Amino acid sequence: MAHDAIRELVERVTYAPGYTKAVGTRVESAEPGYIVMSLAKTDDLLQVNGFFHGGVIAGLADHAAGGAVTTAMPPGRFAVTANLQVSFLAPAKGTLLIARARALQVGGTIGVARVDVVSIADGAETACALAIVTLRGVDFPAK
Amino acid sequence: MAHDAIRELVERVTYAPGYTKAVGTRVESAEPGYIVMSLAKTDDLLQVNGFFHGGVIAGLADHAAGGAVTTAMPPGRFAVTANLQVSFLAPAKGTLLIARARALQVGGTIGVARVDVVSIADGAETACALAIVTLRGVDFPAK
Amino acid sequence: MAHDAIRELVERVTYAPGYTKAVGTRVESAEPGYIVMSLAKTDDLLQVNGFFHGGVIAGLADHAAGGAVTTAMPPGRFAVTANLQVSFLAPAKGTLLIARARALQVGGTIGVARVDVVSIADGAETACALAIVTLRGVDFPAK
Amino acid sequence: MAHDAIRELVERVTYAPGYTKAVGTRVESAEPGYIVMSLAKTDDLLQVNGFFHGGVIAGLADHAAGGAVTTAMPPGRFAVTANLQVSFLAPAKGTLLIARARALQVGGTIGVARVDVVSIADGAETACALAIVTLRGVDFPAK
Repeated sequence: MAHDAIRELVERVTYAPGYTKAVGTRVESAEPGYIVMSLAKTDDLLQVNGFFHGGVIAGLADHAAGGAVTTAMPPGRFAVTANLQVSFLAPAKGTLLIARARALQVGGTIGVARVDVVSIADGAETACALAIVTLRGVDFPAK
Repeated sequence: MAHDAIRELVERVTYAPGYTKAVGTRVESAEPGYIVMSLAKTDDLLQVNGFFHGGVIAGLADHAAGGAVTTAMPPGRFAVTANLQVSFLAPAKGTLLIARARALQVGGTIGVARVDVVSIADGAETACALAIVTLRGVDFPAK
Repeated sequence: MAHDAIRELVERVTYAPGYTKAVGTRVESAEPGYIVMSLAKTDDLLQVNGFFHGGVIAGLADHAAGGAVTTAMPPGRFAVTANLQVSFLAPAKGTLLIARARALQVGGTIGVARVDVVSIADGAETACALAIVTLRGVDFPAK
Repeated sequence: MAHDAIRELVERVTYAPGYTKAVGTRVESAEPGYIVMSLAKTDDLLQVNGFFHGGVIAGLADHAAGGAVTTAMPPGRFAVTANLQVSFLAPAKGTLLIARARALQVGGTIGVARVDVVSIADGAETACALAIVTLRGVDFPAK
């Protein structure tokens, strides 16, 4: 797909009514096999200690991985998560999360993405999670 | 801890302002090492295909696992997730998610929980995810 | 497949020259979607502390999972591991490992198996690992 | 620890009688938090298709991760695997496996390592697996 079409696809899925729109996920950049998304801190995304909740980090990584693998698959195919694994490396203390998802391998039936999630505090990045996501390809859902 | 104290602890953490309260997580039952939580379908929890978003399922499993391992640890210790792994077994098509988290192993420094997540549609359960969560114990945060 | 054919298939793959034969893997039982394998302690399978090496446990779980999912797939398809995740619950101190692998979900392209690994010491079982394995289906390799 | 002491420790554990010595694991380099190990192809390490068995790849990654995290921990502490997750990216067709393990985070109780495993064929590297390993620290076993 052309880059414009890829970004349009990722934005359409991300900004459609539902979880990713509700929490405020933003598409920062989108190219085939590499997606960057961000999520700004709000009170509804935190755990009791005031940091981003692990489920929010996992959800951002999962969604970015889906974009990275889908955009690396043939047109008409869509990647859905089969297995999500997240290692939490440091508390997400910042005011912004950035997830950088790269497709490591994409085949006819499955794809694998690595997602590095960092939190931004005072302009500095801290690696807070590393996710490896295994996805399977399905036919694109009708709009 | 006494069962009443355990349920009070799990409810306090779950219903405190933040992600788990915002999405509507409910504590169904709580005993040492075994926690059941539920989450009702709302438009803000779905992915574009109308099913629960994988991140929402992962977040519920993560939170329930934290409760199961924390309540199996000595008083004064709190379990935080080090590694979250979720296998998605079927689309979460139902109107309610139920997560049943059981501590499989709890030691001085870490604990492991298995979480079975089912979705309920027309009164029938469908297994939609299986999570294995590895957590580390930390001193309980001051209230 | 008939049960006899399934057992013959699993034994043929397990006892063929290579890793699983070299370490002494035994097929204890085989039915569609559920495989039990065992591995007896030998000096070459241990880590420095005298317990079974984690890689040996992971290999047994991986192989048993492949059998469980392959036998649940249509004839002519073979399951190869895409993602292997093992949680180690206790040191494998025993003289025998037993892996019980059950296919949890098998679709057209992928399958997921859960494997419970126990070690046997003095006739008693201790759960030493829990594995969740995600596999993809490929056409059966020519003999 | 001094680099010499670190290499001596990693070699001692790797070359001690047991699994890693039996399969032929070699320590290529060792520095605090970063270990490179290799494993040459032999008939006893393969699966039926002639490639390295997934369990062998998982075992090499697990062992290298243990070295990376142990050498990043305070003297007297030893890292044992709590959770091993391996994504298989391509068949390990080569004649040599190389595992590069880097400690991503090491705390008082746990550590996380990322391991990139490549296979070498005709002098060219192919990424065949990516592992994320979560380990917990224990007191060093008496020699």
